[in-house]
Order: sequence, then structure tokens, then C-alpha cells
Amino acid sequence: MKTEQLERILYSPYKERILTSEEAAKFIKNNYIVGVSGFTKAGDSKSVLPAFAARAKEEDIKITLLSGASLGYNTDADLAENGALIKRMPFQADPTLRNSINTHQTLYVDQHLSETAEMLHNGHLPKIDLAIVEATYVDANGYIVPTTSVGNSASFTESADEIIVEVNMSIPLSFKGIHDIYIPKPYPKREILHITEPDGRIGTEYMKIDPKKVVAVVFTNKPDSPARISPPDENTSAISHHLLKFFDKEVEDGRLTKSLLPLQAGIGKIANAVLSGFKDSKFKELTMYSEVLQDSTFELMDAGKMIFASASSITVSEECHGHFISNFENYKDKLVLRPQNISNSAEVIRRLGVIAINTAIEFDIYGNVNSTNILGTKMMNGIGGSGDFARNSYLSIFVCPSAPKNNTISHVVPMVPHVDHSEHDVDILVTEQGLADLRGLSPIERAEVILDNCVHPEYKQQLRNYFEEAKALGGHTPHILEKAFSWHINFRDNKTMKLS
Amino acid sequence: MKTEQLERILYSPYKERILTSEEAAKFIKNNYIVGVSGFTKAGDSKSVLPAFAARAKEEDIKITLLSGASLGYNTDADLAENGALIKRMPFQADPTLRNSINTHQTLYVDQHLSETAEMLHNGHLPKIDLAIVEATYVDANGYIVPTTSVGNSASFTESADEIIVEVNMSIPLSFKGIHDIYIPKPYPKREILHITEPDGRIGTEYMKIDPKKVVAVVFTNKPDSPARISPPDENTSAISHHLLKFFDKEVEDGRLTKSLLPLQAGIGKIANAVLSGFKDSKFKELTMYSEVLQDSTFELMDAGKMIFASASSITVSEECHGHFISNFENYKDKLVLRPQNISNSAEVIRRLGVIAINTAIEFDIYGNVNSTNILGTKMMNGIGGSGDFARNSYLSIFVCPSAPKNNTISHVVPMVPHVDHSEHDVDILVTEQGLADLRGLSPIERAEVILDNCVHPEYKQQLRNYFEEAKALGGHTPHILEKAFSWHINFRDNKTMKLS
Repeated sequence: MKTEQLERILYSPYKERILTSEEAAKFIKNNYIVGVSGFTKAGDSKSVLPAFAARAKEEDIKITLLSGASLGYNTDADLAENGALIKRMPFQADPTLRNSINTHQTLYVDQHLSETAEMLHNGHLPKIDLAIVEATYVDANGYIVPTTSVGNSASFTESADEIIVEVNMSIPLSFKGIHDIYIPKPYPKREILHITEPDGRIGTEYMKIDPKKVVAVVFTNKPDSPARISPPDENTSAISHHLLKFFDKEVEDGRLTKSLLPLQAGIGKIANAVLSGFKDSKFKELTMYSEVLQDSTFELMDAGKMIFASASSITVSEECHGHFISNFENYKDKLVLRPQNISNSAEVIRRLGVIAINTAIEFDIYGNVNSTNILGTKMMNGIGGSGDFARNSYLSIFVCPSAPKNNTISHVVPMVPHVDHSEHDVDILVTEQGLADLRGLSPIERAEVILDNCVHPEYKQQLRNYFEEAKALGGHTPHILEKAFSWHINFRDNKTMKLS
Repeated sequence: MKTEQLERILYSPYKERILTSEEAAKFIKNNYIVGVSGFTKAGDSKSVLPAFAARAKEEDIKITLLSGASLGYNTDADLAENGALIKRMPFQADPTLRNSINTHQTLYVDQHLSETAEMLHNGHLPKIDLAIVEATYVDANGYIVPTTSVGNSASFTESADEIIVEVNMSIPLSFKGIHDIYIPKPYPKREILHITEPDGRIGTEYMKIDPKKVVAVVFTNKPDSPARISPPDENTSAISHHLLKFFDKEVEDGRLTKSLLPLQAGIGKIANAVLSGFKDSKFKELTMYSEVLQDSTFELMDAGKMIFASASSITVSEECHGHFISNFENYKDKLVLRPQNISNSAEVIRRLGVIAINTAIEFDIYGNVNSTNILGTKMMNGIGGSGDFARNSYLSIFVCPSAPKNNTISHVVPMVPHVDHSEHDVDILVTEQGLADLRGLSPIERAEVILDNCVHPEYKQQLRNYFEEAKALGGHTPHILEKAFSWHINFRDNKTMKLS
């Protein structure tokens, strides 16, 4: 071992347990329930889990795999391809794994990201056999300082019988201090989460574990797989524009100040572009209480617009990663990373009054949102934290382009064939066409506002026709059951939602 | 005025404002936004709002009406019948009003019961012009001591320009003390809700108002309209039995103690019967953190099984009401009534670990629940607080009979045509056939458990056929879009869900 490696193991007994990733991967037994670090590609296992995936190519061995959220590189793909997964939860975003899920080769449990740790603590999921967590280093007590995410790692290491630590040499030692690790006490002894501002701290800078559980320590030196960030395009710029105009009006009407309230933004290019839009706005002293921080957070900090950001992970482009690491000291006191059941806690989200901005796959004329299942059946990624935030937010906003793929698809449909967020949880809908403010509206009023503002011109008359025909049949939420999915069926069969 | 009436007006200036209900009802102007007390028939306006309904029979006058939840007697029916409602929110349970909503004569905004007050405070709903609230009495400061419910009254009186107080002589003066009124501070200054046990108190025993707003005081002497409670039948007893067996197992496995965790039960005969089932069980020292207390709560207290119950209203049968009032001193220290944004607060529900038991209209093979819209279009009552509890509970349980109306309807269907609670928020489903434990299961696994346990024998093969055909098409959540609503369409056209 190199000196700089050994400097990251401040607890001597672990020095006896240093192994290669292949050796460590042997601790994983058939049918194990394995919990791994990693949230939206950040802070995931970069050697032991991939080594296990390789091992599963040769051996008939399968596990149930729990993570924070999506993993990086090809880990999920390799695991799926090599038939190593019985069940996966609570989130994924990998095309190969997705295919394995949709063909019933891998069982997938799509959960609110705040729920997995809760269910583990309550015994509503089986306990973890083995946890694999990435670390910046281990301290003198054998406790783990995480890297670019916290995710469910604290709950996994608490539940697990055995722990494998992956020390990532590419993360600066100065990372200690950006984490705030807190594990709720078991019922009925739960306590108040004393977070009253985005920068509130209630825990420790490390994950306290029982050092006896650590069966292996492995070294890596590989950064997180970078986020693919697209530059703002016409659609994302238009969405951002509509939303900024809306916030302007809220400030003008006295409902919000120029600091707004803490922002949450889902993962992905639309949410990132929307946040970036704040750079050239009148808003100031913005904060985030979110689950993931993307490039836009650091852009807003650099622009002097954002003063603090709380999340469970940092998932940035290669360029932003370099900039962030080189200038870490500038950001360190403006950041905190929390376990995902705290970053996504209903209690804190409601108390802070978070403004939640999430991406929809599609929404319907009454404001129900599908975030997960394409054509109602094929899993895309998962609901992630969108439900944690949408339900308990001050304002629940969903954004998507109105008609992608050369307008062959309308993302505003008669009825969504899968509901992740019901009409009750959706305040504002935005497409590049415009913004629908649904607050205080009945379904019929909502439909009018959505028709007027969000629908692509090529689908406007077609949606109007559906709505008028349905309305004539009566009912609080008018629908024609025979035709509710006709657009989706048409797309499935004819590759367009346009009815001829 | 009689002496005993004047004894209930401890603030002298109000004595000048005593009016008849007809006189008071004249304060209601056309297009007013009126907020009234009343939650599941309890503590509603029994004279002024009915007088307004009568006035609207003669006059062309319409209002937007907000309440806590449903109102008692014929008030909602008369308002609807006389064309007095532009819009109604956030809940109703009246057949005449329901018909008016479903024929688009009254706009209806169906909301999570915790949300209305939040939206008012945040300015996301227009402010209240006039509030009408039932009182036990008004104290020396002009503050209002509520009656059998709190609902949204504190938020309405805060928002309103004018207030009408209805002093109900039928409520004993000793009611003072069972209420705990708290109004959250405006953002960004929200505070922690320091409730860590069902009996926790954070507010005052009265609603603090600005006495200058009080334009009229009216006397009534009429009890709440009684709840219609059916005796347990074969179905509700079987549901109760399955659920008790489940709780037994949870205790045996060490996840729960014999006191379980605080219970919530939705309004209605099934939930009431389920709770009654605890009377002859091994469970003890039970508590409730619910929105409404029904007869079963008092039965459990009488049986020495329940030690404390928190809610926003007390809605009981005539018999139970008499018993409760005559023995009020026995119950007083075991009860607290809170504003519905506190009884249904995500923060408190999650902290206490509430076990939520709510009634579904129907659910589907993947565990999505419809609580509101019959055949996807016709409003029944509303989502009520079921979403507030289901999302943030320790366990989210939904119950319903499997095949009512002579088995012409199956309440387990291929796809629900309206989703109020998505698969993500549903842990346990129970019909008289059995209990499906969905914790940690993927959609395909869920379908098997639901098929095995919940479906009526007369629909089992039919549902199995749908599931197998859908599964063969693939997808994480298999469905046949053309057939997903075929059962509902068949019922609409042929009055049975049985496919020939």
C-alpha cells in the first residue's frame, strides 16, 4: 500500500483488511441482500460491485440490490447483463437494466427515495446482509467519511452484518465536514428533525459504524461518472422563461420575496436548465433544499445568486467536477449532504416551504402526472424523490416539453396511463408553450387552463375535441373510458399520437 | 336573550351584535368567499348557512364555500339545490351536492384536507370574505371556543374580514379544554410542530380572533347531525379479522408492541367496524392520531383499550353522542381536537409513526387506489385526509369489500380509472377475502399477492386472465391499454363487471 493510501485508514485494525476488489467481491454470497452507496451516479461503488458483476458472468450468483438512487458507469448494466440481480430498488436509470426490468428478468421496486431507509428501519424490508460504501477516508474510530453522496448508506451500514469500504483516493480529504449524518431513532421514540433552515445540522460529519462489521477495505482512484449535461435549448429556455416570469409575479403579488423559498430541482437537463435561468434574473440569495445538486447549483453560486445548497448528492459534468474539486474551499461552507430520508423528509420540506421543480414524462388534462412508466407499462427510471417533494412542497411544479420527437408525441394527453402524482399534488405545469397555474381550480377549470397554455398547437384541437366530448358525458372528472388511452395506443401502433 | 345564552358571551361588545340567523345571513354578499366550520358533519353552522341557503332560493346569489370537510343536515344539499354555490372545497359527502358537482352546476376542488389551510396561509387561494364558525362560547377577550370540530376554522377566521359566531347551547361549557388551536407562522418563519405524542399540545384552548371582525352572534341549540353507523356485518368483520391477525403477526415478529402505534381510521362504517374489532383483541393502551373520531373510539375507551385520541372532529351516532355528552368528564382528558392541518400534518404523522387505515372505492392489481371518482368520472365524496395519512404513515392500509352489490362490481380491477393513491403509497390491502402485504414487492409480485388474497372468487379467473395476457406483453407494470377499463365499461353498459 502506498503511504497516501494508508493515511486514509486512521483506524489500524482496518489495515489488516485491505483487499483487492475481486477478493472483496467474494464476500457477496448468493441471495444476499446488498446495500450500496451511490445516488444519481455520485459516490457509488466503483470497484467491488463491478468486480461482483464480472464474477456473476462466470458464476450463477444473484443478489437483491438496494442503493441510494442510480449508480454510475456500467455497473447496473453489467449486473443486469450477467443475470446478477434478483431484485433492484429503489431507483435506476440504466438502459440495460431498464430492459431487464421491462422483460421481467429483474424485479424492480420503484420507491419514493425517502422511503427505503424508513422501511429498513421499521423492518418492512428484510435486513441488509452486506453494505458496500464509498469513503473519502475512515477516521480513528473506524467511522466512515462519505464522498459525493450520502444516499441510504448510513441506514445500510446500520442494518448490515458486514461492510466493505471503498476508499476513493480521488476525493480530497477536505470533504470531511460537508456531510450531516443522522439516523432517526426507532418508533415510538422518533424525534423532531431540528432543521429549520437549509443549512441546519442535526448529525455527525461521519457515518458511525461498528468497526467489527468491516470485512474489507478496497482502494479506488476514480471520479464519479460524469453527468451528461446538455446546453439549454429552445424548449428548456422557454420553460425557464415561463417559470421565471411566474416567480416574478409571485414576488410582485407579495407571496414570495426575491430569495423565493428553498428550491428543489429534479435530476436531468430540463431542471438543470431551469435553474441556470436564475443566473440572469433579479432573484438573489437563493437556497436549495434538494436531493441532488447539478452544475446549475455551482453556476448560481459562482454568479453570487445562491448562498446555500442542501442535498443528498452532487452529480455534475466532468468540467464542473474539476472546477468544483479545484475550488472546493469556496464551496465547502455553502453545502451540506444528508441521508436521503432527511434531504427528502416531508417534515423538513413542509417546514422550509420548498419550491419543488420536477420533470414529468407526461401529464393529463386534469393535471395528473406520469413520471415513470412509458405508455403506462415500460419503466423509464423511477419516481425518485419527485413525490417526496411534490406532496409536501410549498409549490409543486412539473415541467416537460409539450411535443418531443418531431411532435409525434404529445406530453399533454387525455389521461395518463400511469399516475405517480395525482391532481391533488400538482400546482403548476410548464411546457415550452406556457405555464398553467392550477391552484384552487376544479378539474374542468384545470383542463381549460392546461389547454390554453401547455399543449402544442399541433395537438390543441385534438385535445379540445376529447375534452368537449368527455365533458358532454358529465362527471366531476370527465373522461371517455374507451378513448382515454387512444393517443397512447395510436403511438404504440403507428408511432404518432396524432389521430388521423 | 335568556340568561344562559348571555352567559356564553363573556365579551360584552358582542352582546350588541346578537342577531337572528336570517339577519346574520344577510352579511353574505354575492360572490363572497365564505369559510365555515364543520368537519364530517361535526361543529358545522346549523342556522346561518341554512338561512343563507333559504335566502338563495328567493334571490340570485352565489358564493364559493370552503369548509373543514363535509357539513351536516341538509345544508350542502339545500345550497346546491338553490343554486347558491359557485365553487365548493375541500370535501363534501352529500348526494344532492354530488349530483350538482357531477353535472357541472357546482365546481368542486377536491383537496387533501391538510392543504386548504396551507394554501390560504400562502395566498394560493383567495382570502376569505366571511367566516361562520360554531362556538361553545366566546370568552372575555372575544375569543372563540369551538365545539365538536376544529377543521379549518382558525385559518378561516384569521383570513376573513368578517366573522359570524354561532353559539350552540347544546354543547356543555366544559368543552373548553379539549381543543388545541395552533396557526403556523408564515414562510419563511415556519416553526417546528412540537408534537411528539398523540396528546402533545402546542396551541391555545380557543381561537384567537380580532373581535372587531365579528359582525353577528347567533344562538342555536341543535346537536350535530348524527353519524349513520351500521353494525358490523360479515364483510366488515372479516376485514377486521384479517387486519387483527396481521397486527398479531407484526407484534410476534417484534416490529410492533401490543400498543401498536397511533391509529388513524377514515370516516365510515368499514373503518369504524375495523377499529371496533380491537375491543376483543390482545392489544392495549392504544392511541389514535386521526382526523375524525367515531363511535369505535369511545367503545375502545370504555373497554379500557384506548388511552388517548387526537383528531379534528368527533362524529358519532345519536346514541354515542348522548353517552359521550353525559359522560364527558370521563373522556375529556383523553381527547384533543386540532386544526386539520395539524391533525393531518405530514410532520407529525411521520414522527408518531401513524398506522393509517382508509377505505378505498377500488384498487387495481398493482395496488393503485381510487378513493374518489366512480368509474373514473363521477365524484363520490373526496379524497379527504386519506392521502395526508397514507403518504406519511408508518403503514398505509386500504380496506374495501371485494365485490359489493351482489358481486356485480369487483373492487379489485385491472386498472383503476382514477388514482388517488399510487402504488408507491400503499402497503397493505384488505378485503373480506384476505390481506395482501405489498411491502417490498415489485408490481408483478404485488399482482400475485393481490390475486391470491383479495379478489372475490367470482372475479379471480377473470383478473388472472387479464394479468397473464398483460404480462405476456411485457413491461414493468403490465397492462393492455385497450382492456384496462373493460370491466368499468362493462359495468357502465351492462351493470356488471363480469365479462361474458
